[in-house]
Amino acid sequence: MQVTDLVTPALIVEADTLDQNLSTMAKALPGSRLRPHIKAHKCTELAKRQAELGSRGFTCATIREMEGMAAAGLGDDLLLANEVVDARRLGALDARVTVAVDSPETIAAAEAGGVREVLIDVNVGLPRCGCRPDDAARLADLARSRGLEVRGVMGYEGHLMMVDDGAERAERVAESMSDLVRAHERVGGGILSAGGTGTFDCNLAATEIQAGSYALMDTAYDHLQLPFEPALFILATVISVSEKFAVADCGLKSMGMDHGNPRIDGAKVWFCSDEHVTFSSHSPSEAPAAPVRVGDRIRVVPAHVDPTIAYHERLHIVSGEDVIDSWPVDLRGW
Amino acid sequence: MQVTDLVTPALIVEADTLDQNLSTMAKALPGSRLRPHIKAHKCTELAKRQAELGSRGFTCATIREMEGMAAAGLGDDLLLANEVVDARRLGALDARVTVAVDSPETIAAAEAGGVREVLIDVNVGLPRCGCRPDDAARLADLARSRGLEVRGVMGYEGHLMMVDDGAERAERVAESMSDLVRAHERVGGGILSAGGTGTFDCNLAATEIQAGSYALMDTAYDHLQLPFEPALFILATVISVSEKFAVADCGLKSMGMDHGNPRIDGAKVWFCSDEHVTFSSHSPSEAPAAPVRVGDRIRVVPAHVDPTIAYHERLHIVSGEDVIDSWPVDLRGW
Repeated sequence: MQVTDLVTPALIVEADTLDQNLSTMAKALPGSRLRPHIKAHKCTELAKRQAELGSRGFTCATIREMEGMAAAGLGDDLLLANEVVDARRLGALDARVTVAVDSPETIAAAEAGGVREVLIDVNVGLPRCGCRPDDAARLADLARSRGLEVRGVMGYEGHLMMVDDGAERAERVAESMSDLVRAHERVGGGILSAGGTGTFDCNLAATEIQAGSYALMDTAYDHLQLPFEPALFILATVISVSEKFAVADCGLKSMGMDHGNPRIDGAKVWFCSDEHVTFSSHSPSEAPAAPVRVGDRIRVVPAHVDPTIAYHERLHIVSGEDVIDSWPVDLRGW
Repeated sequence: MQVTDLVTPALIVEADTLDQNLSTMAKALPGSRLRPHIKAHKCTELAKRQAELGSRGFTCATIREMEGMAAAGLGDDLLLANEVVDARRLGALDARVTVAVDSPETIAAAEAGGVREVLIDVNVGLPRCGCRPDDAARLADLARSRGLEVRGVMGYEGHLMMVDDGAERAERVAESMSDLVRAHERVGGGILSAGGTGTFDCNLAATEIQAGSYALMDTAYDHLQLPFEPALFILATVISVSEKFAVADCGLKSMGMDHGNPRIDGAKVWFCSDEHVTFSSHSPSEAPAAPVRVGDRIRVVPAHVDPTIAYHERLHIVSGEDVIDSWPVDLRGW
């Protein structure tokens, strides 16, 4: 199949760039040093490539992701890095399941649901889940008293992923992790799980890094000079052209908008509607540009990969003009 | 089933509010005066209720929506109010199919794809699809010369939906429609299709109104004093509570973000992550509020219904604490 045969809008992934991103990370964080987060791609076929490169443990954000990974034979060591108040579907999985807990209620849920292993989730500065560092040991004791195995701690320094300056980022990550290290000393267990694509090389405290975005990359990371390149694009078809603007058939239902408008190289994006993107039909500088014509295929770069993929049924893997594979986005929903 | 049994995040629809919205519109625009746009709800079960109230014609935004409506037995008169450059899937449908055209290329696509009927799409001020009003007659002639039936014209005054003042909105809609009326006179055919929820009662030129949002309503319409009420909410579970904030399990992958953050009554939303919303655990005024606890169910009001529904597999229809029905969102994708 050729790229021109795809029904648009369609997600296309550059095979070479994906391979390069995956192997670069596997070399930097071999084996159990990396616990890839699969929430960004939601695709077991892509996770299988990560497994082939040495990752046996994976990170998930939802129960559905955990179920899909287990069903795909990738259940050697699955971490749900998120809190749940009903863990019964997790307890029923034919997989090694660890769940994050940060309260007596989530510990009770793990026990009641038949989950055997937990990590104590510690807040390291991002206003989201996680207990206070001082409460970690108490929660670990509680979990053990309920018969749960406490494998260690986790904490996500998400508020530091986008710190521009590398040295400052490293310094602030170390500071953030010092809380987690102290909690870990009191909690025990072999795991200190943390980090992400923005801190994969400067989080030196973690025993494992939960990076996910590196595989397909987000434009939000552009300024960080990371060794990963954007691999995901939305293929769209130009359906209408006027004197000043043109319209292609991808819109709000084919891309996440929390980071703003997508990018179209050589054009200025005016706005998005449900199924349309309106963009300048001439380059922003108004210099002569290749005219856009009805029927042209264009590449649109989404501002945020994760909520973009969650709208789509498939990732089409392309090499030049060939579609060499088509992978279901099989971990959507909850 | 009870609302408390639903896996979260889940879309819930208040049955009474939905019924009220549907019947209010059916009374205001009976029979063929309304051609409901199904892009907002993407749900054939909901479309069936609209049909029962008198609508035999429907408006769609994608080919997948057209296919799903035809498969559900709702294909008496389907309008794809959007341009396509490959109409073969439309031509293959067992339904009455009309497609919007605004260029020689889209007319050629309709002919090549085996579609028999078209509307000339005219730009009435929104920078999106549609030909210049002066080009409409020429395109109609071209379409007829290719053997296509031209049923009339359409134009979407989307840029006027949110004009605050009712009198000003009516005036500007009339002005915008005057172009379309003139084009219609030259094009011929019985249909002048236009309008939306924001202009359903002030667009007096249209022979049929393409409204869709009225069924479930968007908060963006709040200030327009329309006789429709929000019927759709995201049910979420509180999974973590800290001193100043709490976290529930709905995030960027369960709601469209192009209109900004969702609303949680009695709380201030701080920010959304992929699977989380972080919000103040006390009311914004810092007055004593009911404490939020882990395990609580809350209702989150999405800022934009259309791209919210496109993330979900089902609409759960609720009455009080009972889930009285569960309808598949069966028109997603392309």
